[in-house]
Amino acid sequence: MSHTDEAQPRQIAIFDTSLRDGEQAPGFSMNTAQKLKLAHALRKLKVDVMEVGFAAASPGDAEAIHAIASEIGYLPDAPMLCSLSRAMEGDIVAAERALGPAKRSRLHLFFGTSDLHLAAKHRMEKPEALATIERAIRMAKGRFTEIEFSAEDALRTDPAFLKEALECAAAAGADVLNVPDTVGYTSPEEIYALFADLTANVARPDHVVFSTHNHNDLGMAVANSLAAVRGGAGQVECTINGIGERAGNCALEEVVMALKTRPDHYRATSGVETREIFAVSRLLGEVTGNAPPRNKAIVGRNAFAHEAGIHQHGVLADRRTYEIMSPEDIGLPSNALVLGKHSGKHALRARLEALGQGELGDNRFEKLYADFKRLADTRREVTDNDLCDLLAEDGRGHAWELVRVEMRTGTKANDRPTAKVTLDHRTRGRLTTIGHGTGPFEALTDAFCVAAEVKHGTLESVDAHQLSREMEIEVGLLVDGVAISGRSQHTDVVIAAAEALLAAFNNHERLSHAANFADAA
Amino acid sequence: MSHTDEAQPRQIAIFDTSLRDGEQAPGFSMNTAQKLKLAHALRKLKVDVMEVGFAAASPGDAEAIHAIASEIGYLPDAPMLCSLSRAMEGDIVAAERALGPAKRSRLHLFFGTSDLHLAAKHRMEKPEALATIERAIRMAKGRFTEIEFSAEDALRTDPAFLKEALECAAAAGADVLNVPDTVGYTSPEEIYALFADLTANVARPDHVVFSTHNHNDLGMAVANSLAAVRGGAGQVECTINGIGERAGNCALEEVVMALKTRPDHYRATSGVETREIFAVSRLLGEVTGNAPPRNKAIVGRNAFAHEAGIHQHGVLADRRTYEIMSPEDIGLPSNALVLGKHSGKHALRARLEALGQGELGDNRFEKLYADFKRLADTRREVTDNDLCDLLAEDGRGHAWELVRVEMRTGTKANDRPTAKVTLDHRTRGRLTTIGHGTGPFEALTDAFCVAAEVKHGTLESVDAHQLSREMEIEVGLLVDGVAISGRSQHTDVVIAAAEALLAAFNNHERLSHAANFADAA
Repeated sequence: MSHTDEAQPRQIAIFDTSLRDGEQAPGFSMNTAQKLKLAHALRKLKVDVMEVGFAAASPGDAEAIHAIASEIGYLPDAPMLCSLSRAMEGDIVAAERALGPAKRSRLHLFFGTSDLHLAAKHRMEKPEALATIERAIRMAKGRFTEIEFSAEDALRTDPAFLKEALECAAAAGADVLNVPDTVGYTSPEEIYALFADLTANVARPDHVVFSTHNHNDLGMAVANSLAAVRGGAGQVECTINGIGERAGNCALEEVVMALKTRPDHYRATSGVETREIFAVSRLLGEVTGNAPPRNKAIVGRNAFAHEAGIHQHGVLADRRTYEIMSPEDIGLPSNALVLGKHSGKHALRARLEALGQGELGDNRFEKLYADFKRLADTRREVTDNDLCDLLAEDGRGHAWELVRVEMRTGTKANDRPTAKVTLDHRTRGRLTTIGHGTGPFEALTDAFCVAAEVKHGTLESVDAHQLSREMEIEVGLLVDGVAISGRSQHTDVVIAAAEALLAAFNNHERLSHAANFADAA
Repeated sequence: MSHTDEAQPRQIAIFDTSLRDGEQAPGFSMNTAQKLKLAHALRKLKVDVMEVGFAAASPGDAEAIHAIASEIGYLPDAPMLCSLSRAMEGDIVAAERALGPAKRSRLHLFFGTSDLHLAAKHRMEKPEALATIERAIRMAKGRFTEIEFSAEDALRTDPAFLKEALECAAAAGADVLNVPDTVGYTSPEEIYALFADLTANVARPDHVVFSTHNHNDLGMAVANSLAAVRGGAGQVECTINGIGERAGNCALEEVVMALKTRPDHYRATSGVETREIFAVSRLLGEVTGNAPPRNKAIVGRNAFAHEAGIHQHGVLADRRTYEIMSPEDIGLPSNALVLGKHSGKHALRARLEALGQGELGDNRFEKLYADFKRLADTRREVTDNDLCDLLAEDGRGHAWELVRVEMRTGTKANDRPTAKVTLDHRTRGRLTTIGHGTGPFEALTDAFCVAAEVKHGTLESVDAHQLSREMEIEVGLLVDGVAISGRSQHTDVVIAAAEALLAAFNNHERLSHAANFADAA
């Protein structure tokens, strides 16, 4: 290899298996319509290969693969579409049928090669295993654009037999050789050494690519994937949000952003459109009902948020102090400074300015800061609403106040969910409205939208959980095309929801005012 | 170092900062009572050092440190208690006062040493920075059992100046030298090389220990911490569930279980009582309202759960096929096989046996399996309740059926949350009960407990979120000392909750029957 080649970053293929290995985990199953939605998003993300199911696993799986192949498989920029398969004729036929409409298709044929898998799962000796692998690949060859072979549990396979199995697969016609850490057992040092050895010593045609597939049981899937890339792997198998069996797979967004953030170290790049990352992550969370946690790397709600005073000061002074990526890189509009008890004066000033309250005198600011610190010691987060409560003493407070809520619902037809809400508005006075919907939250939303004279208002998201003895709730709405949100807590989930809606509508009114004011200026 | 020493695993100190770096993240703030609860759990977990706050950050922080020092700091097996501090007299005094009652205390003094931190945050040249560090450590020395110095943003600090700063701190009296990757930027290869260099070349007294503190911005905090241990670090700073600023810190449970699972590779051990891991993780999730995601390594709900048919077959045949740890090691009773569309016959048989329905004939089993696969294609998960629906055709069904629910609530005193529930019981016939509570969910629980003649029933957890247009809800109860749970989905959250309670009480009745049957046999 020449020095010029060394200097060029290698292009690593990104193989997304969110719709197969990810979907296979308890609580992450998706139906065909949901898989199609994700497949479109993954195409926009520009992954190289998309594993969309295991055709022989169930009729629903085969149907979803066929639907994706039909709808996406012929688009000019479609990723290669792939189905998993055991080394069995029935599986290969099922995959061929399901992937039929796709222009470019791949069969992902796997066989457990560790002693444990040979004995406990296959009940085969090694020669019989090699014959089975060879027979299956020869049977599949020509029916798909490419064949990928996975030596399942490769990291616990006897290294000499692993090489034999990979050479056997390559000789039979495999184009990609995947070496998975099926149980999430390895370390970066070990997997680097293994890939360096395999890429140097396994006999295979020139075009054959090595692939890495890591599970996160010890929290090291991303580091292991990157170490394998350093050892010579040309494909990384991964999932959005790191979903997958048990502790999940290598997270696509983490491995892609590590390559992008550290070109000096990895000398490798991917073709992924990183500005689509946040949108795909959120879509997957919504479709499966499993949003990533706040502290998830890259896509978690806190990934670009700062609360501690020292950190906030640093970020306001120079964003690079505490950030190595920019939120825009993954498609987020900007980082969010969250106010809490660790926040300092710099952060409070910045938030007040964002709320159009930047012109407070020093004395009033100092008093507000002291009030804020006292409040923050008792609250998880200080919201814009809370700040306006503090400012309210001299008439800078809320537009809406909640006077009363009544709610009825039940299972019979005449129990249709009904909310009666009484609100006081700063200029319009007292209003009582009645709302209906398919549930209490929608009925409340309806009542609020009538009061606020909203043309089109829909409840987009609700998250509620019990915290000590209170219900903490967060609601997201789309109000005449604008996304608004609010949160609150109360022992009664209905009252908590009404207060969260109140906060959302107060925020909305404040921001509309600020916008009108800015337009006027 | 002799060969005998090499063969002995090194004992790595575990420094937990869940109550400081973890608590500092948006959405994770805790009050004093909550911190105390966690501190007791961390003591049972046997961490070596517990950073419990940043005394100068707020009055609430100082109060919490003092409360923990008073209640735990004198117990015979208490961990070392620690407060964060800037290199400022006021901070040192605040920490000394707050930690006063603790028998063993540590000051954790930090100062940003990278060019970016020196310029943007401290506005100091290097000589002034060294003088500041030295002055602060000398001021603190003798007031605490130990002093730890952190060179903040060490991984982006000029290596020559990093060594100078660490030597300066050690000469002034620091006992622990922490080298944090404040922005989560490094890789295992780089941090290994850095620690190998620092431990070989930094002049310091013999007793001084190097410490690693990694953030997870690129998903590599655990791998980086373990690489630092291989490079000579003697202390790992980490948090339960990996909470912390932005993408969080190194997860305690992952680094501890990696050391335990791979003694061959790391040749190091920790003093942590791993069987307490699950309990502490769950407590932290409850207290902060941020449970780890299903696919979280070690402590996520799926970490030891298997859905895919092939994996289930393997696990039933030999658990080691897909598991490298045993669930009992972290304090979980056993692994959970979850039934879904990927599950095979082995898993269905195992679940039926657990439900006391193992004696089905082959024909009935095959029919049930086909019905199950059809149902599984449309459902996220097939619950015990669903299986009983399938079995119900010949009278093996549920104990309870829901006939009607009515709910009223509101903000006025006479709107007290009231649920009227009508249920059919297999043997007791139709029952209508009225329940009250501080919210709709508690009122429903009350109504169910009255119907089921439960002595003490409390609602322990509620999680609800909107999924497409339906609310998905999961409830957990404690019923006469037994934990039961159920889930359901419906457009109306009240009806969804009633159905989830129904599922929980049906499960409860089934398990009591099975237990009685086992006692009788």
